[in-house]
Amino acid sequence: MFVISSADNEKLKTIRKLHQKHWREKLGLFAAEGEDLVDAAERVGWEPEFVLHAGRDVEPSLLSEVSALGSGSRAIGVYPQRWSEPNGRLMVWLHAVADPGNVGTVLRAAHALCDGPLVLGAGCADPYSPKAVRASMGSIFARPPARAEFEDLPGQRVALDARTGEDVRAVRLTEQVAVCAGAEREGLPEAVLAEAGAVARIPLRPDGPESLNVAMAAAVALYEFANRMAGHA
Amino acid sequence: MFVISSADNEKLKTIRKLHQKHWREKLGLFAAEGEDLVDAAERVGWEPEFVLHAGRDVEPSLLSEVSALGSGSRAIGVYPQRWSEPNGRLMVWLHAVADPGNVGTVLRAAHALCDGPLVLGAGCADPYSPKAVRASMGSIFARPPARAEFEDLPGQRVALDARTGEDVRAVRLTEQVAVCAGAEREGLPEAVLAEAGAVARIPLRPDGPESLNVAMAAAVALYEFANRMAGHA
Repeated sequence: MFVISSADNEKLKTIRKLHQKHWREKLGLFAAEGEDLVDAAERVGWEPEFVLHAGRDVEPSLLSEVSALGSGSRAIGVYPQRWSEPNGRLMVWLHAVADPGNVGTVLRAAHALCDGPLVLGAGCADPYSPKAVRASMGSIFARPPARAEFEDLPGQRVALDARTGEDVRAVRLTEQVAVCAGAEREGLPEAVLAEAGAVARIPLRPDGPESLNVAMAAAVALYEFANRMAGHA
Repeated sequence: MFVISSADNEKLKTIRKLHQKHWREKLGLFAAEGEDLVDAAERVGWEPEFVLHAGRDVEPSLLSEVSALGSGSRAIGVYPQRWSEPNGRLMVWLHAVADPGNVGTVLRAAHALCDGPLVLGAGCADPYSPKAVRASMGSIFARPPARAEFEDLPGQRVALDARTGEDVRAVRLTEQVAVCAGAEREGLPEAVLAEAGAVARIPLRPDGPESLNVAMAAAVALYEFANRMAGHA
């Protein structure tokens, strides 16, 4: 059995390259770190380019050196990126959410609470970045993200805005809904708020903060709408 | 006007010490980085030990050097820690949630969605760590955290467990409720599940992940219960 024992190995070099977005885009690949993520890919039949297991395929110290998360992963898999289309009865769209942890967390929430994907608008963190993949906890394999501009979203677009809009519990829903949320401070652009089918706010305490974290706001709205659309079992 | 121009300054040394939990405990202080957090403290009248503004009180490069977040903060304030008691009609208790970002995010969610505090059980990240304070977005000043063991929580204790328990929408609520959530993988200890007044799960899609991120699960449960308890305006 061949065990990689040199940092010059092509597979290790590929993993290191995939830390960078331009290499991920150029190669159309991404890396998933950790046995749980490698298992999650296998469960849904997402074929890797290759998987390296520490101690079996590669010296553990060499695998640690190419980890983007510094978590001493026991396994790193490299996979082709996949992109889905905005579809389903309920989906979520993010605008300019630059934090990869938030993007990955919303990937997971979409997988848990709705039948459509996370759809990424302009200015969002790359969902295939190491931190986003980690935060998705494997949901990126089960429910690959989509990309679309606001104008191209199907169904009724419900824009979340903590300052304006009607109570999320009172929003009238149609057969197909896209929950739209913006970045932490800036929120959604005025043009989006103006063109949305509804603008909604999650009811917060009057003595509370101005808003929830964007991933939380998205999750609460998906929970509320999924309940009302009877979208889950 | 005196502008600090030496890294040997006592205030800068204090800020650097406060990166470490044992110093935070010893001194009973913590640091909040960023003008928005310093403003949040001022709004609720939380008197600082001192605040340093880059360019006004201190050379900007020296302030950057003592930043725990490496975010080039324009201001860092040092404050006495405050702890509240488990109280209110609705509160949230965490067990062994070691990620400071999650602790800070739940602080913010509690401030937004319930009238009681975040109550920390054993094994949780220090809510006064730099990352938790940052993630709270100022809510730590408005709603200081409490500490308690599960046994000492008042009211009905509703344990969240993604695998077992009844639908969170069906849980019978009393006049006072403590939502209890555990760490990402391990969940809550068996003893907690056994002694809880109710065990509840958030309804997730059958083709979805096994659970939500702990901060999201807590937020969704608080939203659901706050609605039903008519806890907010």
